[in-house]
Amino acid sequence: MRARDFGIVVGTGTPGGHNAITDVPGVKVGHTTLISGSGPRVVGEGPVRTGVTVIVPHDGSAFDEPVYAGLHWLNGNGEITGMAFLQEFGLLASPIGLTNTGSVGVVRDALVEIEVGSLGKGRQAWSLPVVGETWDGMLNDIDGQHVKAAHVREAYEKAAGGPVAEGAVGGGTGMICHGFKGGIGTASRVVDGYTVGVLVQANHGRRDRLTVNGVHVGRSLPASALRHEEAGSIIGIVATDAPLLPHQCRRVAQRAGLGVARTGGAGENSSGDGFLCFSTGNRNLPASALDAAPPRTFQVTVLADDYLDPLFYAVIEATEEAIVNALVASETMTGADDLTVTGLDGRLLAELVTPGT
Amino acid sequence: MRARDFGIVVGTGTPGGHNAITDVPGVKVGHTTLISGSGPRVVGEGPVRTGVTVIVPHDGSAFDEPVYAGLHWLNGNGEITGMAFLQEFGLLASPIGLTNTGSVGVVRDALVEIEVGSLGKGRQAWSLPVVGETWDGMLNDIDGQHVKAAHVREAYEKAAGGPVAEGAVGGGTGMICHGFKGGIGTASRVVDGYTVGVLVQANHGRRDRLTVNGVHVGRSLPASALRHEEAGSIIGIVATDAPLLPHQCRRVAQRAGLGVARTGGAGENSSGDGFLCFSTGNRNLPASALDAAPPRTFQVTVLADDYLDPLFYAVIEATEEAIVNALVASETMTGADDLTVTGLDGRLLAELVTPGT
Amino acid sequence: MRARDFGIVVGTGTPGGHNAITDVPGVKVGHTTLISGSGPRVVGEGPVRTGVTVIVPHDGSAFDEPVYAGLHWLNGNGEITGMAFLQEFGLLASPIGLTNTGSVGVVRDALVEIEVGSLGKGRQAWSLPVVGETWDGMLNDIDGQHVKAAHVREAYEKAAGGPVAEGAVGGGTGMICHGFKGGIGTASRVVDGYTVGVLVQANHGRRDRLTVNGVHVGRSLPASALRHEEAGSIIGIVATDAPLLPHQCRRVAQRAGLGVARTGGAGENSSGDGFLCFSTGNRNLPASALDAAPPRTFQVTVLADDYLDPLFYAVIEATEEAIVNALVASETMTGADDLTVTGLDGRLLAELVTPGT
Amino acid sequence: MRARDFGIVVGTGTPGGHNAITDVPGVKVGHTTLISGSGPRVVGEGPVRTGVTVIVPHDGSAFDEPVYAGLHWLNGNGEITGMAFLQEFGLLASPIGLTNTGSVGVVRDALVEIEVGSLGKGRQAWSLPVVGETWDGMLNDIDGQHVKAAHVREAYEKAAGGPVAEGAVGGGTGMICHGFKGGIGTASRVVDGYTVGVLVQANHGRRDRLTVNGVHVGRSLPASALRHEEAGSIIGIVATDAPLLPHQCRRVAQRAGLGVARTGGAGENSSGDGFLCFSTGNRNLPASALDAAPPRTFQVTVLADDYLDPLFYAVIEATEEAIVNALVASETMTGADDLTVTGLDGRLLAELVTPGT
Repeated sequence: MRARDFGIVVGTGTPGGHNAITDVPGVKVGHTTLISGSGPRVVGEGPVRTGVTVIVPHDGSAFDEPVYAGLHWLNGNGEITGMAFLQEFGLLASPIGLTNTGSVGVVRDALVEIEVGSLGKGRQAWSLPVVGETWDGMLNDIDGQHVKAAHVREAYEKAAGGPVAEGAVGGGTGMICHGFKGGIGTASRVVDGYTVGVLVQANHGRRDRLTVNGVHVGRSLPASALRHEEAGSIIGIVATDAPLLPHQCRRVAQRAGLGVARTGGAGENSSGDGFLCFSTGNRNLPASALDAAPPRTFQVTVLADDYLDPLFYAVIEATEEAIVNALVASETMTGADDLTVTGLDGRLLAELVTPGT
Repeated sequence: MRARDFGIVVGTGTPGGHNAITDVPGVKVGHTTLISGSGPRVVGEGPVRTGVTVIVPHDGSAFDEPVYAGLHWLNGNGEITGMAFLQEFGLLASPIGLTNTGSVGVVRDALVEIEVGSLGKGRQAWSLPVVGETWDGMLNDIDGQHVKAAHVREAYEKAAGGPVAEGAVGGGTGMICHGFKGGIGTASRVVDGYTVGVLVQANHGRRDRLTVNGVHVGRSLPASALRHEEAGSIIGIVATDAPLLPHQCRRVAQRAGLGVARTGGAGENSSGDGFLCFSTGNRNLPASALDAAPPRTFQVTVLADDYLDPLFYAVIEATEEAIVNALVASETMTGADDLTVTGLDGRLLAELVTPGT
Repeated sequence: MRARDFGIVVGTGTPGGHNAITDVPGVKVGHTTLISGSGPRVVGEGPVRTGVTVIVPHDGSAFDEPVYAGLHWLNGNGEITGMAFLQEFGLLASPIGLTNTGSVGVVRDALVEIEVGSLGKGRQAWSLPVVGETWDGMLNDIDGQHVKAAHVREAYEKAAGGPVAEGAVGGGTGMICHGFKGGIGTASRVVDGYTVGVLVQANHGRRDRLTVNGVHVGRSLPASALRHEEAGSIIGIVATDAPLLPHQCRRVAQRAGLGVARTGGAGENSSGDGFLCFSTGNRNLPASALDAAPPRTFQVTVLADDYLDPLFYAVIEATEEAIVNALVASETMTGADDLTVTGLDGRLLAELVTPGT
Repeated sequence: MRARDFGIVVGTGTPGGHNAITDVPGVKVGHTTLISGSGPRVVGEGPVRTGVTVIVPHDGSAFDEPVYAGLHWLNGNGEITGMAFLQEFGLLASPIGLTNTGSVGVVRDALVEIEVGSLGKGRQAWSLPVVGETWDGMLNDIDGQHVKAAHVREAYEKAAGGPVAEGAVGGGTGMICHGFKGGIGTASRVVDGYTVGVLVQANHGRRDRLTVNGVHVGRSLPASALRHEEAGSIIGIVATDAPLLPHQCRRVAQRAGLGVARTGGAGENSSGDGFLCFSTGNRNLPASALDAAPPRTFQVTVLADDYLDPLFYAVIEATEEAIVNALVASETMTGADDLTVTGLDGRLLAELVTPGT
């Protein structure tokens, strides 16, 4: 069940076929969800409420066929590995992993390993993979570092187009958002013949600030009993087939933060709110290869800046809707130390957002 | 008449005594408003609908007693001079000027001249003044560059604490915001014993996106007949007496953009949305003087990061309210080529925002 | 007389025809030099030792035909106006002005005025011109702000290709570099069929750190008697016809700072060391016009990153040589308060750099 | 044997007692060196020529007692994890790991594990550790990912003050610098009562550009037979007890790149040249703790900007000397596929740099 299933429509734009990041042709998403154990937290044993999500940016080799990309931090209390390369070269040259804060490294190195496995004989990897995180330490035995390389390979291999599982799945398994159970959410918009898709791992926000379609629903809901409800983060991945250059991707990425703001986020101090936008609009970019000589120059197509506003609006809207989707898709979960985090009831939310309907 | 005079209360925070940037002790604001002529635009003659606003950051010498500062661009289609110095040193070391796009230079050099006049005999200026702008070319003969150095001196000399004139005054004289007459607006919040004040020169936004307290009022208002209604910008100045370091100022500055987003702005492509935050919480910072040797080290007070959230929330709210104040304070204006831009009726707005009250 | 006239050859690369920034096809340079008065400094009267240099980036309209650009600050104690736009859009959309610190504004507004004059009837300017500065307050009555709009127009109209006057001309008139008379210098390199040109306004550095071709000549020269010899700045403009995207321009710009470092600069605290690189390799970029609708997309050519190293090396070398050219071209000058700054004798320098030749 | 043992003295400054980063009180360095196997490369088997280096920033808990820090990329073809947090908060809150490109993740997660082990019962980790890398894939079976968590713990536990092993040790084991065997190098300077120490993992540069004390020694040495000799990187860690704020650390960090430039580096396209500076001058900074409430404000000491130049000069010099130390300490190594990389003979180098002595 998603926001629109409950009659909650965010904004005025037109979603793509799946209302998901996978509406951008070639984009694939895979999740590995790890849920086991219950009761008291024992570091290294559990309970386990975590996972890993892998986003494959297009239908070619993510490692050998880079695409333009840019990123923006609303609040940098978080990690996105590969950031220096992405900022310097304006390129995304790996799948994107999303996981918990304590497992960024294993996911990152597993993506290197996947690249190594994909190379022909005699070739060597040169990879600075992109992995983002949010902190699931309230529900999950995060310090036990339960994500392993095999889980990453599984998510990578399962990555597919079409509908995307939302809520407590993959990297979003143990997340908490605006004081409710959070996780993975996605949405998309079609503008001017281009598709813009957003996927969030939503683990941020205070309950009393939650705002949907301008309605301060958080003020009408019972107060959260969670300690540290603000101690979260949100990672947002924006994909588009509009042909953007790296600095345009960076500009688009910043707008995802405006969608966070419109739903009540503020880039709180303890939150890592980072957004990455990639464009599949140019697929002929040369990889920095060790042994190959790319052509000296190549041609790319560029969307004129004057046509960016519809994309900006689309990203804001799709981010808002992706957050709401993450909330309504996530069911009540009990995790470490028997902490229970309530899922947000979509019917209740709909009643608050569009009373009487 | 301000938003609260019409019963429009933004957010839940407590404003300072004047609900203005001048609530931060020592901050002064002065306006020079230039309105003359009517009828067809003749470049160099008029009609003139412009001006300059000067913000003096504290009650000492703005040039000799720098304060920590930081800035953030939501969309950099604009100008804030002095930016490289501010980013490298984290210091604001001049009054802040706000004017139209074509007159940034004269305001900047006039601030240098004011510094020269303030120096004792034999001392020389070393100044990289901070001047921001938004584009008033629809109502004003902007290409005539009607702002002169004397106007800057006048605004500087008139700068005072207490209530701040809003609407079509100073740098905000010819501005247009969300398709209505815009201009200067301000608001403040008191949090944890500190004051946060925001002043905007609001010239941005589309009418159909205008949102106040979550209500999409823009959708209920007659469509704007203006060409290029989005062709604007918003400059926001955030002042606080909370003791912030430069990087903390930068973080606070970014939150002003979230207030813009919550009222319907998106950092549109043709908009220069820039935000500068300065902190008067440490007043003992050494100036980079040519002939004086400052002490080698000095002590500053720092607000712990864990206490930033209330400031973030306050800046978001105060920015929202400052924008609404700019809108309701600005009366209908006819300018160049007899273009008339309608002022937003505060009573109408209040009825839309809080129906039935 | 230039470095090569004295037998001083920097590096191993091949200069263009004029060994100047104007070797990049279409680039033009114009100077207005203001020298008048002598004796004691009287603010507003003189002595005057200053000026303005204008660089026109190509043979089209600098305002209507933007080119990709990027910038980098080694030390941001300086000003380059138009920086926010340049960083957000990656575009240079004006001629570049270079002048003294106190006159940045008048040069900036004069460039707006020049744009206004260039527009057809009914069009309006939207310009955020690029103006850099260094501080000539030791030799010049800088606080007198002697540069006027007419001087800017003169430099703009005189701008031409071919050989570039160096030393105490234009914006470089009153500058001091490594304790010697400094000013404008330029050099170029041809690499892989592309031309890279550098022009510096050199006003930075300590004498005892001056290094040419690795020889610490500063240690062999008489100590400087100047107060504040480090109180300078260097602005470097890099032009190339290699087809670079904005982020590639930014990367190339940073390398100019490495050339500064190799001649003994360190980005000293009181120095504004800023570098701007623009590429004329794509000349079909749409301007952000108020009344015109550009095509939705366009094609650009991009140099593959793997071919950047020769450009990096060329910029480093050309910056080094431009600094040495500025030094040897600048003759001894007496300015305000009868301060005399010695020109660096090219023959003496050559003897130190290549002894016995 | 170090540069000074061969009579090669870089610059004019005074080194600390060990001429090492450990001269900054409290800084500790530990290496784990992995060398095994020979002959043809078999991914996952070897030959292994790699390792990990850990730098502990002070004598307290690196996780619970953050220090101010800043970073700069001369060329971002590399990875330093924890970068977003470091840039947003200006804090270093972990030990620093250095390793090969393919093993960044395991080192990063091992540092999280070390933090977990250091916490008292019931506390949870919130860690975004800092790990940098350079690529040792010519000598090492990098794609085999031979670094394990136990190696990180070993390096962390062995970390000590005093003399620092240089050359082919720790993260520097398999590195190549300017076409010679490279690796770890360090140096320090004492200025104005403060100590500045630099440690590099040097894997960058072309042989024909190698410059020591201004002498282009690379041109006098036999050409390198290595493919991809430029395909390297250099990570530089700058430590100081001068009390610097985050933005001052960032400024100091950029100067390390000037030292790289002076020895012939250029931030080549395929090189990840990143520099991190931390200051132990304020040790009372509150950690962002989940369960503790730090005091609302605290006092810090700040070095006045006017006193930064000696630190800038010191960092430049110490970086140059650290690179030379890395070169002369590294002996000829044969690695994967029997590739042999020659060590630079210190006596030969000294003869070239100071002929006749």
